[in-house]
Amino acid sequence: MSQQKPSIPKGTRDFSPVEMAGRNYIFKNIQEVFDLYAYQPIETPAMEQLSTLIGKYGEEGDRLIFKILNSGDYLSKTERQNLGEIESVKLTPSISEKALRYDLTVPFARYVVQHRNEITFPFKRYQIQPVWRADRPQKGRYREFFQCDVDVIGSDALLNEAELIDIIDRIFNKLKVAVEIKLNNRKILFGIAETIGESEKFTSITIAIDKLDKIGLEKVNAELLNCGIQKKSINLLNPILTITGSITEKISKLKEILKSSETGMLGLSEMESVFKYLSEKNIKSLIDLDLTLARGLNYYTGAIIEVKAKDVEIGSLCGGGRYDNLTGVFGMDGVSGVGISFGADRIYDVMLITDTFPKEDINSTKLMFVNFGEEEEKYCLQLLEKVRNSGINSEIYPSAAKMKKQLNYANNKNIMFVALAGENEISSGKITLKNMKTGDQKTITPEELIQELK
Amino acid sequence: MSQQKPSIPKGTRDFSPVEMAGRNYIFKNIQEVFDLYAYQPIETPAMEQLSTLIGKYGEEGDRLIFKILNSGDYLSKTERQNLGEIESVKLTPSISEKALRYDLTVPFARYVVQHRNEITFPFKRYQIQPVWRADRPQKGRYREFFQCDVDVIGSDALLNEAELIDIIDRIFNKLKVAVEIKLNNRKILFGIAETIGESEKFTSITIAIDKLDKIGLEKVNAELLNCGIQKKSINLLNPILTITGSITEKISKLKEILKSSETGMLGLSEMESVFKYLSEKNIKSLIDLDLTLARGLNYYTGAIIEVKAKDVEIGSLCGGGRYDNLTGVFGMDGVSGVGISFGADRIYDVMLITDTFPKEDINSTKLMFVNFGEEEEKYCLQLLEKVRNSGINSEIYPSAAKMKKQLNYANNKNIMFVALAGENEISSGKITLKNMKTGDQKTITPEELIQELK
Repeated sequence: MSQQKPSIPKGTRDFSPVEMAGRNYIFKNIQEVFDLYAYQPIETPAMEQLSTLIGKYGEEGDRLIFKILNSGDYLSKTERQNLGEIESVKLTPSISEKALRYDLTVPFARYVVQHRNEITFPFKRYQIQPVWRADRPQKGRYREFFQCDVDVIGSDALLNEAELIDIIDRIFNKLKVAVEIKLNNRKILFGIAETIGESEKFTSITIAIDKLDKIGLEKVNAELLNCGIQKKSINLLNPILTITGSITEKISKLKEILKSSETGMLGLSEMESVFKYLSEKNIKSLIDLDLTLARGLNYYTGAIIEVKAKDVEIGSLCGGGRYDNLTGVFGMDGVSGVGISFGADRIYDVMLITDTFPKEDINSTKLMFVNFGEEEEKYCLQLLEKVRNSGINSEIYPSAAKMKKQLNYANNKNIMFVALAGENEISSGKITLKNMKTGDQKTITPEELIQELK
Repeated sequence: MSQQKPSIPKGTRDFSPVEMAGRNYIFKNIQEVFDLYAYQPIETPAMEQLSTLIGKYGEEGDRLIFKILNSGDYLSKTERQNLGEIESVKLTPSISEKALRYDLTVPFARYVVQHRNEITFPFKRYQIQPVWRADRPQKGRYREFFQCDVDVIGSDALLNEAELIDIIDRIFNKLKVAVEIKLNNRKILFGIAETIGESEKFTSITIAIDKLDKIGLEKVNAELLNCGIQKKSINLLNPILTITGSITEKISKLKEILKSSETGMLGLSEMESVFKYLSEKNIKSLIDLDLTLARGLNYYTGAIIEVKAKDVEIGSLCGGGRYDNLTGVFGMDGVSGVGISFGADRIYDVMLITDTFPKEDINSTKLMFVNFGEEEEKYCLQLLEKVRNSGINSEIYPSAAKMKKQLNYANNKNIMFVALAGENEISSGKITLKNMKTGDQKTITPEELIQELK
């Protein structure tokens, strides 16, 4: 075998022990809150049938799905004589039947339909797993990243929306990440489209106004015009999009504007119910009703939710909404659900920038025994077993290397204490404990050692 | 979109909340022991460069690697005119550059070489991630399964071998799975091949004798003969393979037999050192020196380790060994390491069969508030927030459905307590708590409720 300069595919990452400590801290906190709110974990395979995924994320999404080459003689199913002219996209279905999951939502919908007879509804589930997208890698965008999804399916109660916002607030408070939670409702957006006489252009309108904070009102209007929205409709739309005031004030203004749209009024009433629940809770994050929040995904039918970091310019840290028929495509109609997805990788980036990771990694090693040679090693191994039996993460340097090398190892690994045993310690049954930060050292009994480290 | 009957690729699995509880219990225990022994976690991407993996697992392995189709117009790099006749295996390199990892060992070697300048050696790392193999699915063999690898690289001290066996013993004791740990050493095996005059057929001999417990001595001998091993060599080999006695007795007999083989004697001396370390520990699992343990992987150069369940007929639950030059193929020579891999899926299967999972899932939901309607819901939501703030996993049924439906939900979810608040409870500021197992119920204050559930 020839030598290879090792690398990993672009857009993917290795995680070192230090990075793992930060990531595990995030996952642990998110998972604890999901458990606290009585959601249950599931996991689905990394690979799904290609047919399960294709057509669920739009044309662009279809292209970004990583397809897996069939095993064995995969060309045997193709018509060889046509191979010389075939386009890649046409060949794919005959040489690839599986693909890596693109998100956790579609696999969840597939799971619910496939296991419908084992599930008690409403089904409150969470799922923390990586997803893969063949996106062009760039800062903060990876080809492998983790999503933390939490959904309740089989209940249309608006209490669920309020609970998810409560979960968002609790998680980001635990992580000490300041966020703003933006809410909207697709029914309100539809009501606006109806009110300005452009309900048939609903999707184009949502796509355009979703860009408002990125490109500004002027360019949004140009795009709307481009999509065939009439000038007079745009003139009606603009003052709606720029409504100001408290949430209550916005809702009351909108009630006046959308009064002729049944769907719009229903959206406002849903929004009011959610805010009523929230007003009775002690939500610490900023919350706002943002009419320009549209979220591209077409399966949303009610509430839409997006969370932004307050102190860092980065994409959304969490987002989601209510969907009324996600499982319909797999043959199970009329099951309403609502869910959100936390982006662990972006949260990690924000916490790095704002320096909010706890200083001490609770899983890290507390103690290293220095290895002076055969006799000392034997003595230390007995102590090491006692220390480990007390649940203290600890180790012994595996050989009698130079003292400096051993201490260097402990330093690099951020080990707080080293233990040394020479002739004196062995004959008195004690151990010398050195604090690597302060340099202090003292000779103590094994029992005192364990007491000190606990 | 047309309706689809949902399914997942063969050999893959969904995990329900109940299965997740069992799996998380296994992962948590394994990870706690890895932390206790001062190993540090890393993670690598699911996808590696195909060139990183190809050629590392033998011809059979190469075929079982899942390859990922290049994104976009992947055929643009192929010579179209040849496509009509090309074999699948020849086309693959031009349409696939990435693959799913096949194990955690090769990605670890790649990681060590790629990050050599950031790593302090000896590097004690663990890695718990899924791997993928296009094996024919069968009972207990999956196409996606989790490995839990723990290795120390950059140290040739035999203390590491002893520590890994100690880790095996501690993990299976924690999980209450009775196991037998089998040890051997590739140097002893080479010594045997040398002693019987067949050192050039070393690999064939290891492959054949590895099957002894499956096919019996007669068939092993037939296979050896078939590989060109001389009859008289087989006659010398047979009594060695069937050596009996305690470990000490076996070693002492082998010292006599292998005395002319330097490598063999070195292997025996290594084995003695490992057993000396172990004799000073309180190892609870059965340990044996098993000369027929060979393990197919050619990168092993010293100790080899395999763990079998005592009470269940199933493949090995854990295995590994010492490798002297795993990183050599990536351009970093002379770095010795030793490691083992726990198969979480098989351990799960064994624990299911032997019924050794703890009866209570510590992450499960403890309490559900029954929802009787708007007023009661409002009252219960305040209590629910207090209960959650005390760290008790709890929920409220999201709508005022029929009582029977709500209790049914709690039952199916194995929730131990439900809380009920009607007019009386609300006016007295109390709550009625019902034990779902015993049916007992009592009316108590919110403080008593929290006390009861903690």
